[in-house]
Amino acid sequence: MKARVTVMLKNGVLDPQGEAVKQALNSLEYNNVESVRQGKVIEIGLVETSKEKANKSIQEMCEKLLANTVIESYEIEFI
Amino acid sequence: MKARVTVMLKNGVLDPQGEAVKQALNSLEYNNVESVRQGKVIEIGLVETSKEKANKSIQEMCEKLLANTVIESYEIEFI
Repeated sequence: MKARVTVMLKNGVLDPQGEAVKQALNSLEYNNVESVRQGKVIEIGLVETSKEKANKSIQEMCEKLLANTVIESYEIEFI
Repeated sequence: MKARVTVMLKNGVLDPQGEAVKQALNSLEYNNVESVRQGKVIEIGLVETSKEKANKSIQEMCEKLLANTVIESYEIEFI
């Protein structure tokens, strides 16, 4: 079973990395870009047959290690 | 219009960051994790009404700046 976890900074949290990408794109003449936010995506291969258990397990991993829930939010999807 | 670009290392390209996450998860007793790959996700807000034009524009940005197409692949989706 394979899951994709997307971790993004919460709205309102300053994102200097995204801001740098935005400025780089603007300086390459992409003036139609008005906002950029950057996050990370983690693809996890799990030895687990029950989707429910897998989801619970990954949620735990996010809380403990993958995301800093004070400033980041995460989404789990199965692929 | 908002688009999400997911950039991942191509299959076969060594991913030390993913490997480190995998080992960290294993050491937290998540022994059901058999593989981890890490990539980045970039959310772009575009001032563009035509989806076709936006797609073409973002594809260009990926080729020029956002992804290193020698070792990385990218996916564009509109959200």
